[in-house]
Amino acid sequence: MHQEQRQRAHRALKARGIARALFAHPHSVTWLTGFAPPIQLGPHLFAGGPPLVWYEDGHFTLFVVDAHTADTTAFDSQPDGTVVTHPGYTYEQPLAGTDHLVASLRQVLAISGQAGGAVGIEERSVPLVASATLLDTLQAKSTVVPIDGWLEPLRTVKNGEELAKLRENFALADIGQAAARRAVQTGGREIDVWTEAHSAIQQAAGRRVPLGNDCVVGHRDLNFTGWPLDYQITSGDSIIVDLGTGLHGYWSDGCATYFPDAPTSEQIALHRTVTDALELAISLVRPGAIAQEIDQKVRQLISDAGYPTYPHHTGHGIGVSSHEGPRIVPYSQDVLEEGMVIMLEPGIYLPGETGVRLEDGVLVRSDGAEVLTEHDKRLP
Amino acid sequence: MHQEQRQRAHRALKARGIARALFAHPHSVTWLTGFAPPIQLGPHLFAGGPPLVWYEDGHFTLFVVDAHTADTTAFDSQPDGTVVTHPGYTYEQPLAGTDHLVASLRQVLAISGQAGGAVGIEERSVPLVASATLLDTLQAKSTVVPIDGWLEPLRTVKNGEELAKLRENFALADIGQAAARRAVQTGGREIDVWTEAHSAIQQAAGRRVPLGNDCVVGHRDLNFTGWPLDYQITSGDSIIVDLGTGLHGYWSDGCATYFPDAPTSEQIALHRTVTDALELAISLVRPGAIAQEIDQKVRQLISDAGYPTYPHHTGHGIGVSSHEGPRIVPYSQDVLEEGMVIMLEPGIYLPGETGVRLEDGVLVRSDGAEVLTEHDKRLP
Repeated sequence: MHQEQRQRAHRALKARGIARALFAHPHSVTWLTGFAPPIQLGPHLFAGGPPLVWYEDGHFTLFVVDAHTADTTAFDSQPDGTVVTHPGYTYEQPLAGTDHLVASLRQVLAISGQAGGAVGIEERSVPLVASATLLDTLQAKSTVVPIDGWLEPLRTVKNGEELAKLRENFALADIGQAAARRAVQTGGREIDVWTEAHSAIQQAAGRRVPLGNDCVVGHRDLNFTGWPLDYQITSGDSIIVDLGTGLHGYWSDGCATYFPDAPTSEQIALHRTVTDALELAISLVRPGAIAQEIDQKVRQLISDAGYPTYPHHTGHGIGVSSHEGPRIVPYSQDVLEEGMVIMLEPGIYLPGETGVRLEDGVLVRSDGAEVLTEHDKRLP
Repeated sequence: MHQEQRQRAHRALKARGIARALFAHPHSVTWLTGFAPPIQLGPHLFAGGPPLVWYEDGHFTLFVVDAHTADTTAFDSQPDGTVVTHPGYTYEQPLAGTDHLVASLRQVLAISGQAGGAVGIEERSVPLVASATLLDTLQAKSTVVPIDGWLEPLRTVKNGEELAKLRENFALADIGQAAARRAVQTGGREIDVWTEAHSAIQQAAGRRVPLGNDCVVGHRDLNFTGWPLDYQITSGDSIIVDLGTGLHGYWSDGCATYFPDAPTSEQIALHRTVTDALELAISLVRPGAIAQEIDQKVRQLISDAGYPTYPHHTGHGIGVSSHEGPRIVPYSQDVLEEGMVIMLEPGIYLPGETGVRLEDGVLVRSDGAEVLTEHDKRLP
């Protein structure tokens, strides 16, 4: 489970002279271990701190609260992985998750405490108390090196294990889109469409699944992004439904635009242009393509058709994060590589009136794009 | 908005010689400011760090990413409150939320940087990078005092503003329970009951609402706590539905047990005993009552009826956190006070067979408990 990811991290750290490191960003933890705690209610109430990963000379130790034990056994059985759990909830004593987490950290670190040398820390994510424990235990012999973001470039190319998780998520998002399409009707509300989509996804998965991203009617002033509220779908309206599921710590994404009635001639024209823009974007995907060139060409198509260009990215990578590299944006000189998974999502928005966005996810293959999303984006 | 809470915090900090402090725990931020960011997808992807509150001599500055601007205008208009936003998402430049957050912090702190003295820090929640910025800016003249948990005792008694938010949440949980009761049927699954409840809650609220806590059938081996999965509700089964909503940064809670068929004589006996236990618990609530005495008496009733006592708390406070003081548990000498809001939730569990838990939320009034939950907990 995620051994190839750990080997990539190991090589990268070694190449930069880091023999020991503490990872604290949730995306780092999931990518290194495959462990993805539930996120829907915020941080675990009794854990006392986030899951942490301690790296030392090719071995990875995951610190988690005992509530997650069952979800970490797969990682614990890995030759290069160990799980250390600390007590969280109890009704018999005062809650002391942080004290237990710190004690766990201290115990593991003490074993290697006298080595000295450079120690990497994700200082943008690690709580002060955990880093203080680390520095305290390792003493003055060690030098701290910030390693925030170091794993991000390693994450852009997906392996087979990750593709399987991504495909499972894309299939769930497709189910959500189909439910949303069925639910759109005049007089219904954004939140009604959303709950239908979310229920369908969770019933298909047989469990809770976090869901992003947007569900907004065309007559909102800000009509390209936003959470579902009680705005009604009016006659002649449009509704942008952008859904991303987060099962197994990986994400999907995808967007369609639905119409409660027969679309107007203007909406048909918008939809045709955005369809062309998405097809163009997909056709430009291949190893060696430059992100900013794709971005520029797709924007140009929208502009050439006489519409304002969209105030957001043309696309982005997806994996343990719902928006990661490569970013398909005006400044990005990222080069596409085989094995990257990329979302493409051009749109046209007429604020307060109507808008259309269409989005697919693609795998970069040696001969071009394999489209991973299968939701119906056609006009009714 | 939440001015009384800030005044309580101000007095408590002053009494302990703290003139400046950095709060980073999400519960602290919500309690001090009334601001509650969405939590359903984990930390904001582009914020670069959690919302932070800087306290200085009675004034509170809230640091948030620009995406939250609209949700913080109410706090920004307070005489003792200021909001400082930093840029998050952009498609025109590389993402740099943390850099912007740190720059904001640095700018505000620099104004007061030369004062010296004790500075409080929630060191269990603050990211290392933010605390490093703080210490760097304030220089060596300041002494750091950990203030984790300091606000918790101040939070136990709720004021009118908080009660209004709690009541709104309890009403939502009631709606969820009614939907769950309707959805329970042989052959259905836990996740089906859950999605019905969650949809009803979100449709009533007109927006997304995070939802806890448990949805487990009686024939699970661990049948008192757990997230909904695809376990089927079988003939003769029971299902514990424990729902807590998180609207406006405050929580509700409540539990009922449903039966797809006419309950067996054993289930009826369990249900009667747990009903008695809950009624006893409610009758014991009044200012001056000792938490551990309530806990002991309620457990005793279950035990006297010949059942195993439940492996969890008898109850807990609720507010910006779904489980906070006072804890109604065996060790707790907490004294109930007028204005506290408390959940009470005795249960009886026969692992792998069946189980019953019933839970109400109550407000401690001078003359006893006012029950805030109104969901139907009766046998069918």
